[in-house]
Amino acid sequence: MTELEQRRKAVSAALASRKIDALLVTSLANVRYLTGFAGSNAAVLATSSDTHFFTDPRYGTDASRQVTCKVHVAKKPLTDAVAGILKRNRLKRIGFEPAWLNIEQHEKLKKRLPPGASLHATDGIVEELRMVKSVTEIEQIRRSVQANSDAYYKTLGRVRLGMRERDVAAELDYQMRVHGAEKSAFDTIVAAGARSALPHAHPTDRRLEANELLLIDMGAFVDGYASDMTRVSFLGFPPKRIRTLYRAVAEAQQAAIGAVRAGVTASRVDGVAREVLKRHELERAFVHSTGHGLGLEIHEGPRIGRKEKTKLRAGMVITIEPGAYIEGLGGVRIEDTVLVTERGCEVLTPTSKEFVNL
Amino acid sequence: MTELEQRRKAVSAALASRKIDALLVTSLANVRYLTGFAGSNAAVLATSSDTHFFTDPRYGTDASRQVTCKVHVAKKPLTDAVAGILKRNRLKRIGFEPAWLNIEQHEKLKKRLPPGASLHATDGIVEELRMVKSVTEIEQIRRSVQANSDAYYKTLGRVRLGMRERDVAAELDYQMRVHGAEKSAFDTIVAAGARSALPHAHPTDRRLEANELLLIDMGAFVDGYASDMTRVSFLGFPPKRIRTLYRAVAEAQQAAIGAVRAGVTASRVDGVAREVLKRHELERAFVHSTGHGLGLEIHEGPRIGRKEKTKLRAGMVITIEPGAYIEGLGGVRIEDTVLVTERGCEVLTPTSKEFVNL
Repeated sequence: MTELEQRRKAVSAALASRKIDALLVTSLANVRYLTGFAGSNAAVLATSSDTHFFTDPRYGTDASRQVTCKVHVAKKPLTDAVAGILKRNRLKRIGFEPAWLNIEQHEKLKKRLPPGASLHATDGIVEELRMVKSVTEIEQIRRSVQANSDAYYKTLGRVRLGMRERDVAAELDYQMRVHGAEKSAFDTIVAAGARSALPHAHPTDRRLEANELLLIDMGAFVDGYASDMTRVSFLGFPPKRIRTLYRAVAEAQQAAIGAVRAGVTASRVDGVAREVLKRHELERAFVHSTGHGLGLEIHEGPRIGRKEKTKLRAGMVITIEPGAYIEGLGGVRIEDTVLVTERGCEVLTPTSKEFVNL
Repeated sequence: MTELEQRRKAVSAALASRKIDALLVTSLANVRYLTGFAGSNAAVLATSSDTHFFTDPRYGTDASRQVTCKVHVAKKPLTDAVAGILKRNRLKRIGFEPAWLNIEQHEKLKKRLPPGASLHATDGIVEELRMVKSVTEIEQIRRSVQANSDAYYKTLGRVRLGMRERDVAAELDYQMRVHGAEKSAFDTIVAAGARSALPHAHPTDRRLEANELLLIDMGAFVDGYASDMTRVSFLGFPPKRIRTLYRAVAEAQQAAIGAVRAGVTASRVDGVAREVLKRHELERAFVHSTGHGLGLEIHEGPRIGRKEKTKLRAGMVITIEPGAYIEGLGGVRIEDTVLVTERGCEVLTPTSKEFVNL
């Protein structure tokens, strides 16, 4: 059985416990996970015995070549074709993905349901499977962190005073592509000076000046799999306040990495980072959670946050990215992509965490 | 009154005719249109007298600086904060955007509604306003087509045999950024040889060879506004069959552009392109519609398709992009971004449509 077939089998097996006859999958990441299809319009209907794949004529050729389950090429909206299969197979209780079906699509589908059929919100059946990565997936993530890291080093060597944040971001994205990425996994963050204190800064026309922080948060998609990394460097020799800030965040990050192991709850890992920053009186400067899972999406389960009770399992791939942000001064975040193992973890990101002075 | 205030006033004015007390706007493009806010998590609640803006703490600083209506910074999910405002203002009939609210969000909001309040699907109130662009918006689109065209010429000068499709795409995206774009408006299409017959080809590792077609479909976002352009060139001197194909598509495109004018229905413009291709026995090779509106999104209303009854209005910005695709041989598509005027149209795309031989 291929890996895709195994995944489809796992979904089919999950239907019975939810008391549904079929699951309609409309999340494109979930569709890709189950079929390998990477286009922009598709759906899957998984029953206990079959998997049906739907796409529109633009992708007809691609789909019939790539997808190994039953392919249906239908005009938009795909929900009409789905309803046809429900009827033909006398499927009654239909699960759907409430975060991936909007009210408009839901109404359209409801109107076309065969008599006696009904729709039921489900709870992330495919997302649950996706949390633990297979050997093949981990291999793809390794290629993704490598492309990301290569692009980072290459770009860092080209950073000069007077460049705009947006020029640095353009170079990073270009280098990711040259090193094998399809594209960046999210809008690359390049924030200089005090702007580094905005956790979600978009690159601007601001030019790099001497004696300021440079925060870069970047990720690549390689064969559909994401990487995610943040590094901070300094344009000149950093003053003591900045060095202290950097060391505190680095310590928090290292401590959180040290806490990662199969069986530990996600909130515990978050707590470890938070405790270190508290010791440095930076707990209020840490305004987000410690990390998140990643894979076919840049953000997936588990969240590594205060209240997340999920227990880490070997094969999960997560980020560890504590940060501290001080308005007017700047921010430091250090982020790695990390593989959870039985006895601890492997830091997949191959990039140095030394505080570089450019 | 600023332009943003005018837009918000237009939304407030639209509420009465829909018999709703407020409109919940969850499309991020619509939020941006009404407030200028460009972050990734926000909502707007427009009442007959006020506009409330909601975002999470990550964007707190940005929002309070930029957004000129009532700003509410609230933890996720924003629907809880929205429900609070509904209660405080005794708002009862609440319109929402069915294509921009998923079942999960809808359920959450429904649970928090104050007694007597109810949710009602609306029909693209903001999208309707967005179809006709203001002078400022047209200026932004002009900058976008210019960045796009500059990047195209710069890249074309660097195309060499042996480059991979993905290298060309990476260079195009880099050049767009260098020429002022935030990012590409969609995944840039670079398709060589017979792959150009796939209308939605993603760039691959395939290397450019002599004597083949090179199709490039690209767009930029500049200050949030999209451009969209397709050009086809030939690596060598094209054989007669390809030249004939190119001429037919160019003729169809020119004819469709000639048909654009305020008052004409969108389907008529589509029909004109289709008639020309039919005359060349290529009607079955034209597998998509002739164009689409663009602005804050790469695809917005009106669709320039067979069945689209919308009448064009001065100030609409649309693409005109007929194509013909022949499996095994290749495809040609020629696409411009065009501004509808009272007496005809202005082709905004400044790029030559001569069939270039590289």
